[in-house]
Amino acid sequence: MANNSGGFTEAQVISRLREIFATSDPRVEVGIGDDAAVVAGTDKRQVMTTDMAVEGLHFRTDWSTAFEIGRKVTAANAADILAMGATPDFLLVALALTGDEDFKWVEDLAKGIKFEADLAGLQVIGGDLSRSEKIVISISATGHCDVPVTRTGAKVGDGIYLSSLTGWSAAGLAIMESKIAAATDAHTVAVREYKNPTIDYKFSARGATSMCDVSDALLEQATQMAEASGVQFTFDEKLIVASPEFAELNSVADDLNQGVWQFIFAGGEDHVLLATGNNLPGLRIGEVQAGSGLSGVSTSVKPKIWKHFN
Amino acid sequence: MANNSGGFTEAQVISRLREIFATSDPRVEVGIGDDAAVVAGTDKRQVMTTDMAVEGLHFRTDWSTAFEIGRKVTAANAADILAMGATPDFLLVALALTGDEDFKWVEDLAKGIKFEADLAGLQVIGGDLSRSEKIVISISATGHCDVPVTRTGAKVGDGIYLSSLTGWSAAGLAIMESKIAAATDAHTVAVREYKNPTIDYKFSARGATSMCDVSDALLEQATQMAEASGVQFTFDEKLIVASPEFAELNSVADDLNQGVWQFIFAGGEDHVLLATGNNLPGLRIGEVQAGSGLSGVSTSVKPKIWKHFN
Repeated sequence: MANNSGGFTEAQVISRLREIFATSDPRVEVGIGDDAAVVAGTDKRQVMTTDMAVEGLHFRTDWSTAFEIGRKVTAANAADILAMGATPDFLLVALALTGDEDFKWVEDLAKGIKFEADLAGLQVIGGDLSRSEKIVISISATGHCDVPVTRTGAKVGDGIYLSSLTGWSAAGLAIMESKIAAATDAHTVAVREYKNPTIDYKFSARGATSMCDVSDALLEQATQMAEASGVQFTFDEKLIVASPEFAELNSVADDLNQGVWQFIFAGGEDHVLLATGNNLPGLRIGEVQAGSGLSGVSTSVKPKIWKHFN
Repeated sequence: MANNSGGFTEAQVISRLREIFATSDPRVEVGIGDDAAVVAGTDKRQVMTTDMAVEGLHFRTDWSTAFEIGRKVTAANAADILAMGATPDFLLVALALTGDEDFKWVEDLAKGIKFEADLAGLQVIGGDLSRSEKIVISISATGHCDVPVTRTGAKVGDGIYLSSLTGWSAAGLAIMESKIAAATDAHTVAVREYKNPTIDYKFSARGATSMCDVSDALLEQATQMAEASGVQFTFDEKLIVASPEFAELNSVADDLNQGVWQFIFAGGEDHVLLATGNNLPGLRIGEVQAGSGLSGVSTSVKPKIWKHFN
């Protein structure tokens, strides 16, 4: 349905999106095209989140394809649902386009959203199309759970776990910024994780006492969880160094002349899960202790500067 | 909590938003501050919608206060829930700020969202804060219903109803654009409806066979409903002329030297409800007949130009 006359209407875009997001999920009673979507009720608890991505800040159209951008914004929302110990259900996609995109770019963005949504078990059931000077993609996701895993339940004596090592996305961003070619397999992994973070959709939260999605820096998220739970998070860097992924990430940091701990603790956008509990899957990186704040973080790590307004 | 040092952090904003949006609704188990919100399940059908508003396109900060903007974007989402014959429940608010706003502007925006949410019976349970060159507010709303009223059920012989007369918002916009002072009560109403459309939160959809929110032009929305239902929408301008509101709106159009039918049929953003059925509340404006498309629309009305991309 590409329009070769050099223009296309909003109605054409919506029609194509309805095709791409078509679902046979019997829970979806009214999908894209009415004032709102309608889905079957459930007595399970409902989990809801929203995440906005802005061109230039969260993604660059010269660095990532539309398909990659679609995947990444969807993954960020799906990870928030998983981080509550919940099962992903539905997506709403609000999209502002500049008007300079060609039809295929918009199609590829939708296909990227659909691809990641399929991995997560999410159905796209509605959205909104608008205009803006920069592309803005705002997604809302829902899920369901029996008992949510919040940030407040970490207990003294719990282990601290990551579903996989953080820092890869930041290392990938550093490679893109440095403009070095991705010369090794580890470089390739880092760039891929920056463009399309791998979400562990099978991560089992069974036994987790608290959990969150590491969308910002691990340092910041762990601080928030420690505060919410009234405990101290004590990291053990030896455990991280012993992990199979560490050597690979360290080699990327060396190639860039940057500090690996900075990537791991102050990176962000990895969308791995940070959880407390015992005998959890993933990488054990420390222990919950009495107290407050964090300890065991390399003094070489500088927190990212807080975003200031005005 | 205004910060007089000339700057404020994201954490300060979020803290203040949590205060403004505090809720005692027992259905809300986890509100703002975790990866996602958690609410109690229900066996009612769930209704979900999203609507994005972009500075310059949907609102102007030199024309509307932050409070007014907050109300308007919330009303647009609430109206989509009502248009399904559903009861509003929850809101997620994703907000991109430029960084040039002062703290009070952000507070007032949140207070406007809260004010309209209270009118609609909506609880704000989560959100996201981001940066952009223009302010973007993307809201998602949920609701519940027994049986949804879609756009597809209009039947030959049904009456066509508006919950109130369309055109006021477009008239208000025209007043703002013309820079004439709002000299009469009708002018004041028009400007108010542009800035803060009045949503009929008590509109009873009982007996409605189809319904939609008139966010775009009535002409466009009626065309969509007629097509979705496989019928013709036949308007009777005499019925509209006889309505108490018509003379007022007509006086505004005269003062602006613009056509009142253009406001009524090609305006937009009134967020009144367009419904079919019999003995519905509001203003009866025509009848559903066999056929397709629309009839009875003044030939003087020019449809708004479709938005074209690329």
